[in-house]
Amino acid sequence: MSDREPPPGPELAALVDSRREGHGLPRAFYHGDKLHAAELQAIWHGGWLFVGFAFEMPNPGDFLTLDVDATPVLVIRDDDGAVRAFHNVCRHRGTQLCREPAGQLRAIVCPYHRWTYSRNGALIACQGMHDGIEKSQLGLRPLHAETCSGLIYVSLAATPPAFDGLRERFEAAGKPQGFDRARIAKVIDYDVDANWKLVWENNRECYHCAPCHPQYVKSNFDIYEEEYASAAVRQKIAAAIARTQSKWASPGDAAAHPTGGLATFPDPERDLWYTSNRTALTEGFVTESVDGKRVAPLMGDYEDADVGVLRMRSLPNFWLHASCDHAVATRMLPAGPRKTRMRSYWLVDQDAREGEDYQLDRLLPFWHLTNEQDWDICKWQQKGVDSIGYVPGPLSQRKEYNVDAFIRWYLKQVRA
Amino acid sequence: MSDREPPPGPELAALVDSRREGHGLPRAFYHGDKLHAAELQAIWHGGWLFVGFAFEMPNPGDFLTLDVDATPVLVIRDDDGAVRAFHNVCRHRGTQLCREPAGQLRAIVCPYHRWTYSRNGALIACQGMHDGIEKSQLGLRPLHAETCSGLIYVSLAATPPAFDGLRERFEAAGKPQGFDRARIAKVIDYDVDANWKLVWENNRECYHCAPCHPQYVKSNFDIYEEEYASAAVRQKIAAAIARTQSKWASPGDAAAHPTGGLATFPDPERDLWYTSNRTALTEGFVTESVDGKRVAPLMGDYEDADVGVLRMRSLPNFWLHASCDHAVATRMLPAGPRKTRMRSYWLVDQDAREGEDYQLDRLLPFWHLTNEQDWDICKWQQKGVDSIGYVPGPLSQRKEYNVDAFIRWYLKQVRA
Amino acid sequence: MSDREPPPGPELAALVDSRREGHGLPRAFYHGDKLHAAELQAIWHGGWLFVGFAFEMPNPGDFLTLDVDATPVLVIRDDDGAVRAFHNVCRHRGTQLCREPAGQLRAIVCPYHRWTYSRNGALIACQGMHDGIEKSQLGLRPLHAETCSGLIYVSLAATPPAFDGLRERFEAAGKPQGFDRARIAKVIDYDVDANWKLVWENNRECYHCAPCHPQYVKSNFDIYEEEYASAAVRQKIAAAIARTQSKWASPGDAAAHPTGGLATFPDPERDLWYTSNRTALTEGFVTESVDGKRVAPLMGDYEDADVGVLRMRSLPNFWLHASCDHAVATRMLPAGPRKTRMRSYWLVDQDAREGEDYQLDRLLPFWHLTNEQDWDICKWQQKGVDSIGYVPGPLSQRKEYNVDAFIRWYLKQVRA
Repeated sequence: MSDREPPPGPELAALVDSRREGHGLPRAFYHGDKLHAAELQAIWHGGWLFVGFAFEMPNPGDFLTLDVDATPVLVIRDDDGAVRAFHNVCRHRGTQLCREPAGQLRAIVCPYHRWTYSRNGALIACQGMHDGIEKSQLGLRPLHAETCSGLIYVSLAATPPAFDGLRERFEAAGKPQGFDRARIAKVIDYDVDANWKLVWENNRECYHCAPCHPQYVKSNFDIYEEEYASAAVRQKIAAAIARTQSKWASPGDAAAHPTGGLATFPDPERDLWYTSNRTALTEGFVTESVDGKRVAPLMGDYEDADVGVLRMRSLPNFWLHASCDHAVATRMLPAGPRKTRMRSYWLVDQDAREGEDYQLDRLLPFWHLTNEQDWDICKWQQKGVDSIGYVPGPLSQRKEYNVDAFIRWYLKQVRA
Repeated sequence: MSDREPPPGPELAALVDSRREGHGLPRAFYHGDKLHAAELQAIWHGGWLFVGFAFEMPNPGDFLTLDVDATPVLVIRDDDGAVRAFHNVCRHRGTQLCREPAGQLRAIVCPYHRWTYSRNGALIACQGMHDGIEKSQLGLRPLHAETCSGLIYVSLAATPPAFDGLRERFEAAGKPQGFDRARIAKVIDYDVDANWKLVWENNRECYHCAPCHPQYVKSNFDIYEEEYASAAVRQKIAAAIARTQSKWASPGDAAAHPTGGLATFPDPERDLWYTSNRTALTEGFVTESVDGKRVAPLMGDYEDADVGVLRMRSLPNFWLHASCDHAVATRMLPAGPRKTRMRSYWLVDQDAREGEDYQLDRLLPFWHLTNEQDWDICKWQQKGVDSIGYVPGPLSQRKEYNVDAFIRWYLKQVRA
Repeated sequence: MSDREPPPGPELAALVDSRREGHGLPRAFYHGDKLHAAELQAIWHGGWLFVGFAFEMPNPGDFLTLDVDATPVLVIRDDDGAVRAFHNVCRHRGTQLCREPAGQLRAIVCPYHRWTYSRNGALIACQGMHDGIEKSQLGLRPLHAETCSGLIYVSLAATPPAFDGLRERFEAAGKPQGFDRARIAKVIDYDVDANWKLVWENNRECYHCAPCHPQYVKSNFDIYEEEYASAAVRQKIAAAIARTQSKWASPGDAAAHPTGGLATFPDPERDLWYTSNRTALTEGFVTESVDGKRVAPLMGDYEDADVGVLRMRSLPNFWLHASCDHAVATRMLPAGPRKTRMRSYWLVDQDAREGEDYQLDRLLPFWHLTNEQDWDICKWQQKGVDSIGYVPGPLSQRKEYNVDAFIRWYLKQVRA
């Protein structure tokens, strides 16, 4: 009935099978409401979604809201200090409850008829209803929520995938960064005129970094796959690792990706939808800033600026780069088959004061520029893959192994 | 072929059957082009639509136009003074004929090739056509039109429902208000980002009035169902009725709803799609204005300001509140599944002069504010019912009996 | 899977058959993504499309781009001076290659990963790919391209229709106009809120010219069908022909349509999708300008201003009117079922200098005005044919023979 229903299973399976190994996705994957509905069901309503930071909502009643495509979600800290998530719609007539992006609430009151829910989602008042209403059956529909290393995740699935692996990995990796003692210096929202998969495919390779990100490539070794790099480059990588490895190892921060190129992610065969690693910066860079110089006070447990970059990511909607002095996290949310809403968070130490300890015009440009360069490319790729002239090309085994891995991960989810 | 075709009958029947008694409509009813097409066919192209007032077009050749979703309609007064309605498209190549919202015409001339129709729709000239054209077969396609108590109704149906019941009811109820001796003080058009059914559901209960309309609830007893009201409230209602009943009865205006709460409407079991009633205002209010004081000269036959509020309504697109000194009529037209075009008309006596007898800034706020409060709620409800998290909740038997009645009426039409 | 797939063959055939002979197209032809997809496939991806002028890209590496609905096309002059066309998408990940409407390139470099193609479409570099990539298999996907009398045509079809007929016809007809020695004085782009077929139907008759184009009808005999014209009009036509015929005949420019009304086009029975003819102007007009006076220096081989109007047209997207001193060409491209992108080119002799030899405010108004009048009518016709009240009317055998021919041509393509 709805225009938003997924295609029939056999049709979807045939489409999945039509992908040629080692190549991009066929054209039909990049437009159409029906396929988008299938993706929402399989991926966005199935997996774990990064939604924000625990320090954004420190106190009971603090909340934040977001839209997972057309589904509004409420994340709120309850009276016991736990982070909970609910469908942000009233159980009475379905009105969206909280409209602000963030705020503080004693109770969740529907603006329409004042049905009132506690911060743990229980319906506590619905004056005007007839007798016999079973309030216990009309609490807010709960969603799974988890926090870990300061990150909040939510799942819309009835039975989400196990979260333990991510928790273990991110807590160990994130600890020295002190995400629990951070604050947001700036949030920037971007509307990208492209399918969300194009944004991930862009994220999963640095093949495009030299053409598209002249400032980014100066700071790191992402564009060099050690196996194929020149002797000079290999020497530089080795020097960077040698300089840092012993220093990092003691506090447990050893480089988890001591080579060039991008760490392998995802790993569809082992169902790995999250990972983290630490990489070395190039000579002269102590942080991911335009000139490589520090732009804010040291974060977390760091006592030395030379900590490289901690990278974390989880599918389907999160990645983060953390330097010694700041971190930039990025959240992705689809909004129809041709629009993706991106949000980047610039984090600094909780005690850092704007204007004194850091300046936004030094903090923001590195990633804001990189973001805008990427979203522009994605927009033009969307126009291209919409064409009848598009045929999926070969992915570079040297540089796009992660795009291939993403596609294989994606097809595995959609097929399931 | 078209994307706008209704879904197959069995699919639609299954959807209708999926509604749980006493609860809101399932999610699938609030989005989707196919369901919208089914509604257009069953309801908007089937029933009687309020389109405007007879005094808007007093003379032969006066016309007004409107769009019923994507279908342009022309309403015109013919040479004999009768109100006629036609599909507002040329019988030649289909061009929309009249583009202005209202005006005056000697004949209806298509701007494209000057096919010319008389005010009664007959094709009277089509210079340039070949011999043998049968003009008598190429008149404008007529629509059913009726006027009653100053209101104009049109039906796009081949065989519309009987109009007699509405005529009888509205002529009796509307006579003292003098809709035939009124004029429009102001028209305001609103685009509401919500499905038209949400606007009706909002209209059919005053459960939301206390939270949403603080100014509205002061004037009337809509929020009190007598059966459940406190002794104090019941006493107030009784006092209001006692004060007015004998006075109103003599000119035939007796309160037709001498209790609190909303009069029952619609009545799907008896196929009642129109109704009217008169209600008492609260102490201190002689009209529906912000402070309860008169905002214009008395209308119609009234000789005393204390006449309460005459209310009239008809499905699928009309409601009206008339006080002693002014009336506010509201017309609804769908424009796709997620947009509804609302128009409110503020009527005053035909001799009342703006600036002297009434001021717009005193006349408009009461209903303009109420409108904007309602449209905002509907927009947020649309966002909520679009969510996968929406499940229809129970309707209050005390306060939402009319929402339930509307839903039952709606399902009956769509099923037919 | 895609929402953009054509409807099943039998459904389409039934729709084609539903057209009543001698009447307009049924309503379903004017909206809906599925039918639009069928048209793209049958017509826009099948026939020859006018894309621009050879003199817009005189040198190797000069290029222009356009979008055929959602399909980006690149037209470029190669090293040998030949005009070539390609799908404007990278063979790697599908990114749109050239984004500017026109420009100059040494090589075609994808901005994403610097895959580099020669001007003849060969993949010449894809640094970063793994060994074993067969570059020869990854050249740009070529489209058929032809030039003739200064016009560039492209076809997206694997096997396009024969181009020879058009070439022969247009080269003979266009030679005296000197399209190879012209330049563009002005390009104006128009977005028309109507289906592309409505624009063609509008173009194929001058029945609407008297009501809609008061300035246009002064210049020519288009609105008079000789067979039906008054004696006075016939005499005027005869006089115009007598004045010009002998003079034009010697350089081979004899009037190919020495009567009033529009020349017959298209001819679906003989599969004629292009044609040209020369018509006489009325007394006092030597060019298609508002006052009939010359607005630029003579073009091409003309030595006398009295050359009437050369007209050329080809389906699905080109028409042109050329006077002694300037020519106006119009290109049509669909952009979804309800939007059509029109571009008009005002051409003058290559040596004419703006401000000295011609003034834009004298050159442009005649056709710019005519265009805007037509696009406005098409917009209102779209609104009309979207209505459930639209039924196709009879086409005038006297004045709309070409609309009928266009519809028959169209149905023949779609059925095939």
